[in-house]
Amino acid sequence: MARVGIYGATGYTGFELIQILERHPEVEIAFATARSAAGRRLSDIFPTMIDTPLMAVDAVDPRDVDLIFTCLPHNTPNLDQIIARALEAGVKVIDFSDTFRLGSVEEYERWRGKPHPAPELQAAAVYGLPELYREAIRNAKFVANTGCYPLSGILPLAPLARAGLIADGNAIVDAKSGVSGAGRSLALKTHFGEAHETFSAYNIGRVHRHLPEFEQQTGLHIIFSPHLLPVFRGILSTIYVNLRPGISPEEVRAVYKVYDNEPFVHLLPAGKLPELRHVQNSNLLLFGIQPVEPESGRYIIVSALDNLRKGASAQAVQSMNLMLDMDETLGLL
Amino acid sequence: MARVGIYGATGYTGFELIQILERHPEVEIAFATARSAAGRRLSDIFPTMIDTPLMAVDAVDPRDVDLIFTCLPHNTPNLDQIIARALEAGVKVIDFSDTFRLGSVEEYERWRGKPHPAPELQAAAVYGLPELYREAIRNAKFVANTGCYPLSGILPLAPLARAGLIADGNAIVDAKSGVSGAGRSLALKTHFGEAHETFSAYNIGRVHRHLPEFEQQTGLHIIFSPHLLPVFRGILSTIYVNLRPGISPEEVRAVYKVYDNEPFVHLLPAGKLPELRHVQNSNLLLFGIQPVEPESGRYIIVSALDNLRKGASAQAVQSMNLMLDMDETLGLL
Amino acid sequence: MARVGIYGATGYTGFELIQILERHPEVEIAFATARSAAGRRLSDIFPTMIDTPLMAVDAVDPRDVDLIFTCLPHNTPNLDQIIARALEAGVKVIDFSDTFRLGSVEEYERWRGKPHPAPELQAAAVYGLPELYREAIRNAKFVANTGCYPLSGILPLAPLARAGLIADGNAIVDAKSGVSGAGRSLALKTHFGEAHETFSAYNIGRVHRHLPEFEQQTGLHIIFSPHLLPVFRGILSTIYVNLRPGISPEEVRAVYKVYDNEPFVHLLPAGKLPELRHVQNSNLLLFGIQPVEPESGRYIIVSALDNLRKGASAQAVQSMNLMLDMDETLGLL
Amino acid sequence: MARVGIYGATGYTGFELIQILERHPEVEIAFATARSAAGRRLSDIFPTMIDTPLMAVDAVDPRDVDLIFTCLPHNTPNLDQIIARALEAGVKVIDFSDTFRLGSVEEYERWRGKPHPAPELQAAAVYGLPELYREAIRNAKFVANTGCYPLSGILPLAPLARAGLIADGNAIVDAKSGVSGAGRSLALKTHFGEAHETFSAYNIGRVHRHLPEFEQQTGLHIIFSPHLLPVFRGILSTIYVNLRPGISPEEVRAVYKVYDNEPFVHLLPAGKLPELRHVQNSNLLLFGIQPVEPESGRYIIVSALDNLRKGASAQAVQSMNLMLDMDETLGLL
Repeated sequence: MARVGIYGATGYTGFELIQILERHPEVEIAFATARSAAGRRLSDIFPTMIDTPLMAVDAVDPRDVDLIFTCLPHNTPNLDQIIARALEAGVKVIDFSDTFRLGSVEEYERWRGKPHPAPELQAAAVYGLPELYREAIRNAKFVANTGCYPLSGILPLAPLARAGLIADGNAIVDAKSGVSGAGRSLALKTHFGEAHETFSAYNIGRVHRHLPEFEQQTGLHIIFSPHLLPVFRGILSTIYVNLRPGISPEEVRAVYKVYDNEPFVHLLPAGKLPELRHVQNSNLLLFGIQPVEPESGRYIIVSALDNLRKGASAQAVQSMNLMLDMDETLGLL
Repeated sequence: MARVGIYGATGYTGFELIQILERHPEVEIAFATARSAAGRRLSDIFPTMIDTPLMAVDAVDPRDVDLIFTCLPHNTPNLDQIIARALEAGVKVIDFSDTFRLGSVEEYERWRGKPHPAPELQAAAVYGLPELYREAIRNAKFVANTGCYPLSGILPLAPLARAGLIADGNAIVDAKSGVSGAGRSLALKTHFGEAHETFSAYNIGRVHRHLPEFEQQTGLHIIFSPHLLPVFRGILSTIYVNLRPGISPEEVRAVYKVYDNEPFVHLLPAGKLPELRHVQNSNLLLFGIQPVEPESGRYIIVSALDNLRKGASAQAVQSMNLMLDMDETLGLL
Repeated sequence: MARVGIYGATGYTGFELIQILERHPEVEIAFATARSAAGRRLSDIFPTMIDTPLMAVDAVDPRDVDLIFTCLPHNTPNLDQIIARALEAGVKVIDFSDTFRLGSVEEYERWRGKPHPAPELQAAAVYGLPELYREAIRNAKFVANTGCYPLSGILPLAPLARAGLIADGNAIVDAKSGVSGAGRSLALKTHFGEAHETFSAYNIGRVHRHLPEFEQQTGLHIIFSPHLLPVFRGILSTIYVNLRPGISPEEVRAVYKVYDNEPFVHLLPAGKLPELRHVQNSNLLLFGIQPVEPESGRYIIVSALDNLRKGASAQAVQSMNLMLDMDETLGLL
Repeated sequence: MARVGIYGATGYTGFELIQILERHPEVEIAFATARSAAGRRLSDIFPTMIDTPLMAVDAVDPRDVDLIFTCLPHNTPNLDQIIARALEAGVKVIDFSDTFRLGSVEEYERWRGKPHPAPELQAAAVYGLPELYREAIRNAKFVANTGCYPLSGILPLAPLARAGLIADGNAIVDAKSGVSGAGRSLALKTHFGEAHETFSAYNIGRVHRHLPEFEQQTGLHIIFSPHLLPVFRGILSTIYVNLRPGISPEEVRAVYKVYDNEPFVHLLPAGKLPELRHVQNSNLLLFGIQPVEPESGRYIIVSALDNLRKGASAQAVQSMNLMLDMDETLGLL
């Protein structure tokens, strides 16, 4: 049994991670931390029978485990120290923040317009997308788990982009996410009375914090429009692309053969599109591609994933399985 | 046109009140106050085209208007000063708090077990339930608007109790409320992810703050079980009573003749029960009474109302219409 | 008081129409028809206190009224006879079907690829969009009420298209609708368990029945992607356009001055976008326009309306007010 | 690997059963039947990656398997023939209908007031509640799976009743169920627009089809009030009982020691009550008991379970595990 530690167990991704790991046959949770809930038990905080004790960060030692997950809010002050201390001790790390996803200090600073908070750690970080970086993850000490929104576009778009099929280098991604994507911290926009029985767009025409990895991984210029759905979990993205004219729908579908043996990423049969229900509570990313005017190259892709699973915690477990040399699908089927 | 002022415009009841008054043909809103949102406009805070400016409490003068509504959180420190200042100036007051509903300082202190915060104001307060206290409200300077939960039981139970039909002096009220009843202040229990797609009981077997007026108005011993529904507005209560044996269902229905001319309170035909949809966005309280085992006196009443309308702001406007000598139904149909 | 008749009172648009007309100060409902519910009352079918009797179609005479609304399912066999009989008797007609919206028999047959079912009636039909055809509606005997989806795009796009600002003649309309848009007839896709807590795209890349009027009214080539939201009412559309480069956002906003005096159509201030909550239960269409990359002409429009109100029944009342020479906003504020 | 067959795979309980069995390590699904969907695959009907073929009833042979589940609508005409044919061949049966739950032909006819449709099968049927009838189920050839509503009351009430603690032999069960309890057949009451954002009571004061087993298993007179929640899955029941006075809350809790070793039934700690979220998607039944006025014996129990899991398909798998001599919790944790 491998031993793992979880920093930040009382957010939605941390809790989801614990639920997945509790059923994992080859892993045990050595510790789970919380800030305000330190000293209590998971079952005091969440409606669950899982009775994990919640520890203060200072009360745990990352060197006790084989791998830690850091599911802490963006900009947690001592995140880089936790990671550094673990890596120094030979403990592997999967980080959920958006700090280490951009490949290099230069890229971080170019996109964010500010100094990288932990440049000495960046070089070790591997982008945590097994379908594209499986071997690198297998050998990684440090994995930067992906954003949930970008994943909904990167996996369907990357093969098209790599095959040179996208005519103009652009994609429009009209993305709709459940409310859990906004986290468990209290805010008026996620208050029941404000998020229920409504629907809204946000950050339209602005640079969302997830855009850099999205453009970087696809090499495309992305128009990204996030929306807030009145459901708890799931992202469905409707993606508009102009492919090179003169290519048949069958040729387009052929580029997705790269996913033929993937356990969790599936192109649906022609004419079928995924719904949120297909993917909720699973580690699946499903997508369909529909020719709109194939002669002029207009196609629409619809992709769906569970933002807390494939978009966050289940994907982290998929990377963990690779890093700990286990079957990649353990605990995820 | 009468002029009214609203204290506390950015809670759900304050906003609901403004929406009702905006359509009222004989009233204009002279001012609306807010704490943190003072200086902004209602349309900055709520999704509405109503552009009422929001003022600081210190920036308005209750003496400018004919009547004020105080829709402030329970235990707002200077509530009694606002009320006192208005009453002294001859301005009428409708208060939404639960401070002045219990009829006398003695009753308040008996139920609450602590000193009344404003004993000098209590004597003037009339319980704001037009169906039971119409004449008193018509002559009142100061009305204490009722609680939303008790209303769902008081109106169906009071006629039975007054007619001496309740065999054992008890009633069980299993009440289910939409989330808006918990207000607009942020709390984990009203966070979308915690309140959506679930259902729970709360305060079971404890004294809810609404219980005293409930028992006082009915003269019954009430077992009251509140529950939280994953809808925005509405209360549906299922009420269990044991009536005196030997009374026919027709005789039971006859005690509700007192409501025959009420515009907003209706007993449904035999065999029919209200649903939340019947009453949402209206000032109606609908109820049905179903004999379960009429020979042994077991009956079930189901009542429904909109907690933000009949349970709060629309009922306040009904009282206002009486206090300002207008048609009782103005703005409410 | 004008007298109106309603054909098809037990669908969602018919019921919505009755609710609006019940509050209309200058109209009375002379009759309402139903098929399977004929002989019963509206309150037997819907949770309402409105007690309109429901008549068989054969039991009513359109000549008894000033105007009829035909809210019948698409392809109701005798729809054209009902309309013809009314028009012959000088009774005005507002039809909710999509049969008479396309301006001419030729256009109908070109778009639908089949013969027009009632060519003799088409010439009299005026497209029921008051903001674009106010004078024609005022003088019309016969109005074809618009589709709900197209409206969400026509009103924001038509001024841009007419001003020649759309660079490539294209628009992508990613539209999201509440479930009431699918009507009250039973179907698995609108069964609670299949539509709740999920989200899906449908008819992607296919010709939706609403597309012809959409393209015709804007003169644009429209990529239209409908989606099904787990809410009851409302449509929010996210619209992607490429405007001619070199035009400032202020110049773009200036084309919407045509709506400055419209009571129900509003461009929101720069930086603001509508949410479904802003428009639910109202006759408003709200929209915002956001420059994404103004130098290259990329803009995103977000528009919102209530599909049962501005998208159907309230808009029909707006047309009725014009046709009966009443204040256009009566019953709609 | 044991082989099982499923009759009625396209209802909610059938689909839930397949999802559970797909993860069961010691069972394989040999066939699944459907009526109108025969010849198609499960993934054509449900949003799932499970690709089970759906067969006509006539195309399968129950003698090919070790055990069959009959998840057919109540009153399916040939249900008894399917069961008889299987039992004759030595194939075990778990039936989801409410035909065989009442213990004897006499009890059936007494409660239902009509002849038993298959008296020759009744004697073999064991009531499928492992917590009460574990040994009988282990030895049974034929198990009648319980109703979902009764379960929410039987498990908390039976120990109190058996201990003689219920003073008056009565219990009031105010039960609230998610919409999936009404099945997947189309009906107006489960149409999205009629079930969403509302709440209602039904069958108040009437004999619900689940009442007989409820009273029979507890020996109590039950006042049972079902309600329809706008959620998909889960039942929460609020239960009012009068216990014998003079018993302490600790003594009351002590009667639940019978569940101490149960894997799926848990009394929560004093002061805690379950919410629907605690049990959704699990085989758990959780309950809490709250003294209201312990001196006079008034207690309230709140219990929660997932109607499709513990209330139906997961419970059936729990019985199957016993009948096939497997670990009782296989596939259910």
